Amino acid sequence: MRDACKEIPDLVQSLAGEMQKLQISQARLEDNVQTLTNRVDNVEIDTRKSIDAYLEVQAQKVEKELNEWLEVKDREISAKIESDVKTVVEQATAAASVARVVESRAADFPVGRHVVGYWGWRDRTVADVGPDAPYFMSPAMLVPDLGELPLSLSLGVLGMPGISAYFGLLEVCKPKEGEVAVVSGAAGAVGSIVGQIARLKWCKVIGFAGSDAKVKWLKEELGFHHAFNYKTNDVTEALKQAAPDGVDVYFDNVGGELSSAVVNSMREWGRISVCGSISGYNESSLPKATIIQPAAIYKQLRMEGFLYSRWHDRWEEGITQLTQWVREGKIKYCETVTEGFQNTPKAFAGMLQGDNLGKAVVKV
Amino acid sequence: MRDACKEIPDLVQSLAGEMQKLQISQARLEDNVQTLTNRVDNVEIDTRKSIDAYLEVQAQKVEKELNEWLEVKDREISAKIESDVKTVVEQATAAASVARVVESRAADFPVGRHVVGYWGWRDRTVADVGPDAPYFMSPAMLVPDLGELPLSLSLGVLGMPGISAYFGLLEVCKPKEGEVAVVSGAAGAVGSIVGQIARLKWCKVIGFAGSDAKVKWLKEELGFHHAFNYKTNDVTEALKQAAPDGVDVYFDNVGGELSSAVVNSMREWGRISVCGSISGYNESSLPKATIIQPAAIYKQLRMEGFLYSRWHDRWEEGITQLTQWVREGKIKYCETVTEGFQNTPKAFAGMLQGDNLGKAVVKV
Repeated sequence: MRDACKEIPDLVQSLAGEMQKLQISQARLEDNVQTLTNRVDNVEIDTRKSIDAYLEVQAQKVEKELNEWLEVKDREISAKIESDVKTVVEQATAAASVARVVESRAADFPVGRHVVGYWGWRDRTVADVGPDAPYFMSPAMLVPDLGELPLSLSLGVLGMPGISAYFGLLEVCKPKEGEVAVVSGAAGAVGSIVGQIARLKWCKVIGFAGSDAKVKWLKEELGFHHAFNYKTNDVTEALKQAAPDGVDVYFDNVGGELSSAVVNSMREWGRISVCGSISGYNESSLPKATIIQPAAIYKQLRMEGFLYSRWHDRWEEGITQLTQWVREGKIKYCETVTEGFQNTPKAFAGMLQGDNLGKAVVKV
Repeated sequence: MRDACKEIPDLVQSLAGEMQKLQISQARLEDNVQTLTNRVDNVEIDTRKSIDAYLEVQAQKVEKELNEWLEVKDREISAKIESDVKTVVEQATAAASVARVVESRAADFPVGRHVVGYWGWRDRTVADVGPDAPYFMSPAMLVPDLGELPLSLSLGVLGMPGISAYFGLLEVCKPKEGEVAVVSGAAGAVGSIVGQIARLKWCKVIGFAGSDAKVKWLKEELGFHHAFNYKTNDVTEALKQAAPDGVDVYFDNVGGELSSAVVNSMREWGRISVCGSISGYNESSLPKATIIQPAAIYKQLRMEGFLYSRWHDRWEEGITQLTQWVREGKIKYCETVTEGFQNTPKAFAGMLQGDNLGKAVVKV
């Protein structure tokens, strides 16, 4: 159970100022801040449950889940901004952090060890980490000894994004040497790792990202064979050039028309791993996109969506392999680090504006 | 190799009359007839190849692949009718038939045996059936001894539609006892078999079809637990009533918004087998539909398209099981039989108008 921590309302008030710069109407923002404040104030403390561990936040993730975020700064339509504000509220209550255990009644979570969990924007919390404890997104996971590597990687390449990339690519798509692998949202926390793993598996790797700077980074730093700015390139045409025989593997972080174009460019027996989409699961407001079923039939494609929690029981296996690749320099990572817990809203707003490259984190 | 059989142009001229009743412009139809005539006239006879078997057509299939066909009679938009005419031409050259071998140089295809293949609208043909022979859709397949059952079933429940239903459901969806299975195009040649197999596997079976008569047939004759006319029912609402906990298995014969509604009504770990779609594989003209990727992620769904040729090597296994179920009365079939080869165009046009229930075949 969470305690009724008061940091969130304060931070959201500060976030309000940042979000105003993004031209979100004051009334709508205040509504959302009020919603969030109410939510935090109304958290029930279940005093019947034993409290198992105290956690001290060491670094904090500012998650950029959806490529669609980038469109906030374009102020395209008010509906999009509205849904972004809703997501801001979700993020503030649901962000992941890596924390040190300062007091514990749980044998598996001893004092001094580091833990990753979803506790929202707060610098300390009381968490129930027992085997039957309720959790959001993921149960608390122990961080292995990272040696000289920064602890914040537990929120990126050596955390949930790394696990999503590793198993979501290898288990769902099963890429083979010589195949063509396409990644959308390729400069994101998950996509950038997916592309590098596909390259390590001897695939030809093609990435799509939302700016020329990101495209340059993918090609020059991360070793992508091809990368394109989807805002200035026709996806179908780009793939005709870069993969004239078709695409074998597609790791989908974005959905929408970009994904329809990639799927309709696949060749026989292609595999699609769906990790992210432009829309949350909200049936009444799902957008339309070009259908992919005819290609699925004629090319006998397989598409599978996943939540990374599917591989909780293989967490250690994935992190061990990823840690080795990072240590050997085979997988490069990039973080945009903001110093100071009070600057979280600023970091968040900056991410919405596309200021960050790679994982955006806050050093508490 | 096909010979330059002259039946097709004659039949297409006759078809022209039938199609005119469907309000297709004469000019457009004549263009298509000319295209088809040219195509047949220009068939090359490769005299270097040995001729392996003579076939005599016994029954002939008039394929109703796409639910979209039903919309022809509604004369909704000219583009649809245009693509229908194109499909008519394809059908005339590509329809399947079951035929008796009257002369043969192929040891595996002895005189007197029956064979299924895709030889178009013709009452006799010369076909290369050697192991390296080129083929359309499927190589010629020997028909097992059907005993008292009609030979035309080799074009339906004991042929390609049966194999598509059997392996497409069991191998792709792996339905389990107690699960909820939804079938679209449920009264079609494939869909009606899929629903009955799902019922035999102890699933709760829900079908969607395009008329009240078909819905009645599915529920009263074929044992579907629920069936709905998708033209007069909201698919999402119907599923909320019939499957309040969500759908586990979806066999998709139609695509489009109906399929988006079913997929967005699925529960965790659902499996989707994609057999048919509203559109052929023509990238430039694919329609849009509500996206399914968010559901794929949050429910961890798996979707797979297939061509029935994938299971050519298990043809006998499938036909043996289906024949047993038909003999035991566990799977019911329905045919609309038209007598006389010369009535093929009439049968075809009738099918476009929804006159048939179950498989439409022509007795040559």
